[in-house]
Amino acid sequence: MTRRQQIADAAIETLAAAGLRGLTHRAVDRAAGLAEGSCSAYFRTRQALLQATLDRLVELDTADVIALPEMSGDSPEERAAEAAMLAIEHWTTKGRVRMLARHELCLEATRQPELRAALQTAAEVVRQPIVDLLAAAGIREPAKRAHLFVACTEGIILEHLTGPAGLDLDPSELHAALRGLMSAFST
Amino acid sequence: MTRRQQIADAAIETLAAAGLRGLTHRAVDRAAGLAEGSCSAYFRTRQALLQATLDRLVELDTADVIALPEMSGDSPEERAAEAAMLAIEHWTTKGRVRMLARHELCLEATRQPELRAALQTAAEVVRQPIVDLLAAAGIREPAKRAHLFVACTEGIILEHLTGPAGLDLDPSELHAALRGLMSAFST
Repeated sequence: MTRRQQIADAAIETLAAAGLRGLTHRAVDRAAGLAEGSCSAYFRTRQALLQATLDRLVELDTADVIALPEMSGDSPEERAAEAAMLAIEHWTTKGRVRMLARHELCLEATRQPELRAALQTAAEVVRQPIVDLLAAAGIREPAKRAHLFVACTEGIILEHLTGPAGLDLDPSELHAALRGLMSAFST
Repeated sequence: MTRRQQIADAAIETLAAAGLRGLTHRAVDRAAGLAEGSCSAYFRTRQALLQATLDRLVELDTADVIALPEMSGDSPEERAAEAAMLAIEHWTTKGRVRMLARHELCLEATRQPELRAALQTAAEVVRQPIVDLLAAAGIREPAKRAHLFVACTEGIILEHLTGPAGLDLDPSELHAALRGLMSAFST
């Protein structure tokens, strides 16, 4: 791992743990276990730090998607539901910190349009496997429908992570809901 | 409207426009068009200001839900999809600012558990009409299923508001997706 990646990883952790308000060069130095001034030597401005954090999220997301196993379900609905279940499992456990950091950046992008392009790349990378599943099944407008499907899946993930009561992720219930959602696209 | 409500409304606007990082007593004074020091005279600490913002969101949400029209659809699935469509329409237009502010507070609540209780009240108020629809239709575990249904609906709203590409809210597509999701609960 390069020093830049190490610092960007610490920025992701800081963002998830302390929000945009807590994301300072000094806090990132502490989270990375580096001497004061290290973060600002690599990313001089706040903007450069935000951009580096976002670039690192895209890089890590892309690696995850490449590592996704083949889906085994019999129908496209089944395989899409299966992929969404894997995404929910991933982003609520191992990927939790990255999901929270990404969400902070999504809110910041409503205020800083220059962050949007990189976020869009990240979003498309994560959505592509679902687009491919729908396209392979001959479903009309796969990109548009994958967008809606992934938005619902992200809603479930976010409610579980940030909702005040924590969403109960009963696998059979979730699977039925995701299949029901997919079935709306197959007609 | 009381002065407290006026200040809390300005805090909601500030939160949506500038994030938690931009939410200062001084910024709220400016947004409210009041003399410097007004906000801190009512809500001395940052914590008191956050709590007042959240309480005002609950108050406004409750008023909205009471004002919800009767759903006219023939089946419970139809009525729940109809209610979700109204919610999507509301929170992506007139309610946009409040939705962004609520979302900032949801992220903050992952760091400040004391905000969770008020957020939970707000979430339950918004969810109750869907719980009632499912319960009236004799659907098992209506509260749990309404939670999942509303999480998906919120995912759609958030993706539209904060997603880098903006989700296309084609009404017939949305309606089909929401009905498909509901149909998973009726079996």
